[in-house]
Amino acid sequence: MNVDVPTLVEQARQGRPRAVARLISLVEGASPQLREVMAALAPLAGHAYVVGLTGSPGVGKSTSTSALVSAYRKAGRRVGVLAVDPSSPFSGGALLGDRVRMSEHASDPGVYIRSMATRGHLGGLAWAAPQAIRVLDAAGCDVVLVETVGVGQSEVEIASQADTSVVLLAPGMGDGIQAAKAGILEIGDVYVVNKADRDGADATARELNHMLGLGEARAPGDWRPPIVKTVAARGEGVDEVVEALEKHRAWMEEHGVLAERRTARAAREVETIAVTALREKIADLHGDRRLGALAERITAGSLDPYAAADELVAGLTGHPAGN
Amino acid sequence: MNVDVPTLVEQARQGRPRAVARLISLVEGASPQLREVMAALAPLAGHAYVVGLTGSPGVGKSTSTSALVSAYRKAGRRVGVLAVDPSSPFSGGALLGDRVRMSEHASDPGVYIRSMATRGHLGGLAWAAPQAIRVLDAAGCDVVLVETVGVGQSEVEIASQADTSVVLLAPGMGDGIQAAKAGILEIGDVYVVNKADRDGADATARELNHMLGLGEARAPGDWRPPIVKTVAARGEGVDEVVEALEKHRAWMEEHGVLAERRTARAAREVETIAVTALREKIADLHGDRRLGALAERITAGSLDPYAAADELVAGLTGHPAGN
Repeated sequence: MNVDVPTLVEQARQGRPRAVARLISLVEGASPQLREVMAALAPLAGHAYVVGLTGSPGVGKSTSTSALVSAYRKAGRRVGVLAVDPSSPFSGGALLGDRVRMSEHASDPGVYIRSMATRGHLGGLAWAAPQAIRVLDAAGCDVVLVETVGVGQSEVEIASQADTSVVLLAPGMGDGIQAAKAGILEIGDVYVVNKADRDGADATARELNHMLGLGEARAPGDWRPPIVKTVAARGEGVDEVVEALEKHRAWMEEHGVLAERRTARAAREVETIAVTALREKIADLHGDRRLGALAERITAGSLDPYAAADELVAGLTGHPAGN
Repeated sequence: MNVDVPTLVEQARQGRPRAVARLISLVEGASPQLREVMAALAPLAGHAYVVGLTGSPGVGKSTSTSALVSAYRKAGRRVGVLAVDPSSPFSGGALLGDRVRMSEHASDPGVYIRSMATRGHLGGLAWAAPQAIRVLDAAGCDVVLVETVGVGQSEVEIASQADTSVVLLAPGMGDGIQAAKAGILEIGDVYVVNKADRDGADATARELNHMLGLGEARAPGDWRPPIVKTVAARGEGVDEVVEALEKHRAWMEEHGVLAERRTARAAREVETIAVTALREKIADLHGDRRLGALAERITAGSLDPYAAADELVAGLTGHPAGN
């Protein structure tokens, strides 16, 4: 059943949460109207400040996100929250099990909360998240917080969607090493040591400072990622995080970095959509036995996989893949 | 510097480990001679029995792999071992840090051991592993054991490369749930409860039996995955694992499943190579500013990402991506 996209977009702009939810479902589920929705959103998006939050399980990401929502709401901003779980196949408006703290915002009309699962998603995170961000942006959110569940390569991917990346840590041996292993230490624009009332918070901050080489000299005008200590559950230090975020945003605007990042992000988005489209074209070939026939020649030893891929690409693009 | 591929392949066939190692490096590193190597290997491959081993860290994968190598060597088979670490960027002939037990086979000319890292690899695991398996196969290995480090989606991917998938567990609460979460429980053809001398081994086997519904009736001719208990460090139960593997292999041959799996695997391999080639074509566009120009129009709001992807795909294939 086709929905009236212009009306839905208009309702979303007016702040109707169900319209926002509906639009996200449309772009997330690869509906036939996906392209219509994206075309309608394009001129409206580009105003939201997108903040990514990453960190190992247990550092208090959900609590920190909730505290940031409160801080931005106090300042009168409209806030979107996208909680991405790459390991789950369940998406939707329902809150994730562990986001009890987020429920305090559930009745606030100035806050949209959406959980998104991308396991098994065609194109994965890189495909699904930017489109949901675009909906929240076009719907008039001033800030979109993208929180990821779990640690891994996909987190880094999500962080690359943000204007500013916040990396959360908590006191405890090995946490920093874990983060470094997962590759998330390199991506922070702002670092938060949460649960700073626990033993070892200063040590974690020092370790971080050392690992990131924050004490070293930088070229004038370079961004030096700040480390902010918080107790998110009590709201302590959260204003300082917002301040650090706003500083980073101002720095990015001043140095043309914001436009640069957004252009790079759009380029990746286009790339992902294009690759997904091409992958679908190939998948379509499963139906007509062409790929199966090639595969049988490979198992028989009469064709190697590269020559087979050449045939496939040639059939798709009109010229061979080459090398 | 070009290598003499036919000579290298001939040496590998004769069982020269350095030739095998060199060939794997050539296919792994996407060398200019990759295609030449793959073409030379095609008619020689297809004889090895490929066994995948997956399981959470700590279940004794490396020890079990080593014990299986010993068992197959006793039976006079040539064995290849591919230890895949999706989280590491380091590949090569060097053994991984934790594979001390494997070193007992290091001087055996009938065993090839290769560790492979795929983090950041273009096309990832799906791209790199099948090619290394093909080298070991063509070099005359009767059995290729593919062991993965860590748990996750990529493990499932690797398992899908195998003829037979072995899922390892060890006694301990929650292990089964972990495995189920990671999606690896569904993929086993043979299940091994290692460290069976520890408390809880029977409970783990029962839990597994229950979760997999192994007690339920099956259609005649269906494969019922066996659960084998082992103490790999002492070699206990390992012959039973080999027996289970051979039974599964015989069952697959009898029911045409082996040919089916290999054809499906080859199809996926071709698909991955083709998609990688197309992705590279798109990446090439980064250079000529076409993608950047599209991205700037998106951030300006004058173009939506789908329309941009259409333009990109049209330039690549001569016709639009459509929907």
